[in-house]
Amino acid sequence: MSLLVVGSIALDSIFTPFGQTADALGGSAVYFSVAGSLLHPVQVVGVVGSDYPFAELERLAKRGIDWSGVEHAEGESFRWKGKYSYDLQSRETLETRLGVFADFQPKLPDAFRSAEFLFLGNIDPELQLGVLSQVKRPKLVVCDTMNYWIQGKKSVLLELLSRVDVLLVNDGEARELSGDWNIHRAGRWILANGPTRVVIKQGEHGALLIEPTRTFYVPAFPLENVFDPTGAGDAFAGGFMAYLARTGTVSEDNIRRAMVYGAALGSFAVEQFGIRALESITADQVETRVRAFQDLTHVTFAEALP
Amino acid sequence: MSLLVVGSIALDSIFTPFGQTADALGGSAVYFSVAGSLLHPVQVVGVVGSDYPFAELERLAKRGIDWSGVEHAEGESFRWKGKYSYDLQSRETLETRLGVFADFQPKLPDAFRSAEFLFLGNIDPELQLGVLSQVKRPKLVVCDTMNYWIQGKKSVLLELLSRVDVLLVNDGEARELSGDWNIHRAGRWILANGPTRVVIKQGEHGALLIEPTRTFYVPAFPLENVFDPTGAGDAFAGGFMAYLARTGTVSEDNIRRAMVYGAALGSFAVEQFGIRALESITADQVETRVRAFQDLTHVTFAEALP
Repeated sequence: MSLLVVGSIALDSIFTPFGQTADALGGSAVYFSVAGSLLHPVQVVGVVGSDYPFAELERLAKRGIDWSGVEHAEGESFRWKGKYSYDLQSRETLETRLGVFADFQPKLPDAFRSAEFLFLGNIDPELQLGVLSQVKRPKLVVCDTMNYWIQGKKSVLLELLSRVDVLLVNDGEARELSGDWNIHRAGRWILANGPTRVVIKQGEHGALLIEPTRTFYVPAFPLENVFDPTGAGDAFAGGFMAYLARTGTVSEDNIRRAMVYGAALGSFAVEQFGIRALESITADQVETRVRAFQDLTHVTFAEALP
Repeated sequence: MSLLVVGSIALDSIFTPFGQTADALGGSAVYFSVAGSLLHPVQVVGVVGSDYPFAELERLAKRGIDWSGVEHAEGESFRWKGKYSYDLQSRETLETRLGVFADFQPKLPDAFRSAEFLFLGNIDPELQLGVLSQVKRPKLVVCDTMNYWIQGKKSVLLELLSRVDVLLVNDGEARELSGDWNIHRAGRWILANGPTRVVIKQGEHGALLIEPTRTFYVPAFPLENVFDPTGAGDAFAGGFMAYLARTGTVSEDNIRRAMVYGAALGSFAVEQFGIRALESITADQVETRVRAFQDLTHVTFAEALP
């Protein structure tokens, strides 16, 4: 089933204790689609400026990424510059230049309007609502957001929440949105405001799937070397959504499997700078890691305690 | 098989956003034994001062806790006073009065020297070594420690590490001991220094079991109301060790099951102040929670991706 992502296409300059990159391919739609396309074709809607190295994106088209929904605008591309702490636990934004992203109004090509799986990457919730109004009858709508919109556009964001199936955010965002520091109560608060499920990413501590009566937990993969956390959350979203689009069902069991695929793609993302690791891995490597995830929490019990 | 704990017996005064207690039963040996005795009898070695309300401990003897190894010394009992932050994520020690604990030299009653499962609670590593020299041929020795000993008695601690089977510490302690912020590399470092396994407690993020070629992860139980994190780590240790002592084997599979029992007991511990929750729950409730833990990470996959 068709999978569409609407999000940012950026040029990232990243400093970590292990090195740096300048004007590397980045943005939520890029990480999402490079990760997701290992499992299923991805349609992308976004905007690039006249300075964007678009040929580098086109080079990725053979993976099954359809860039035909990307608008080419006059002006500078969206740029983000950030620096991570020595332990990669925190990062500082050094510079954000919105460029053509400031006036972005997503317009879906006709061929994309029947998308069955839709991921609304972290952009202005008004634009996310605008995208929703352009799709026909999606089977599953998942959205992301960030502190900037939680603080600045809460009412629009709440309107959006009432119209999506799954909110996928990190723990800090869930806490800020709900005003509750307990992550499980924060999840309940979100469920009470629209979505039927919430996925809470916790970085090196894995991710939670909170549903009305069940909770699922997928750990982070045990990595001894993490080089660049940028894009891990969007790679998670790409793996999660692409697995669902490929298998076509949104049952509780299948959503749990999708969580593991998300965690697997997120774990690859951080092993090299930018999209490098996601670009170079194979579908077989993803399968191998998904099996390794299963061993990570595997435990069996006899019927009764001896 | 017999299970012995050597650790502190304290009077805790705890402030949390939800209330406070004064001179409540506490200390590593108390939390360990109250939790563990839900699964298996526990022998305790420790010290109390002449002001200790020992009758309150004796009241717990019917659970299967053998207090006959507790020394009664002249003087004030060990007291700890601490205050938690609004989100329970950090705590400040307001006062520590060692009292009779300052001169504590653990002496094992003859009947305890053949203990097969031994937990060395967080005390001076010299005393932990002293206990080791008094036991005959234990099947499994697990020890805890803390930043105070890592900073002040590193070489003695390393000597101890070379003689125990499992180190059970929290993430901050593992990082400080190894000098490595990556928790998986920190675990490798510990394995290279003696223990065949390391258990790293991560509070609300669960616990990791790191072995030479495998890693196991047990999440924290999703609790919407946490009242007092004090003693959760020792309750974890109590559940972990008591399950192993009850079942008698230390296979990889059984150690994984023990991790779940540890996490279950730790999750009960934080639901009320002090040892109250651990005192009031039943073995059936522990079993029910262990089953709930299984659902928390339960996911199955078909042989091949569709």
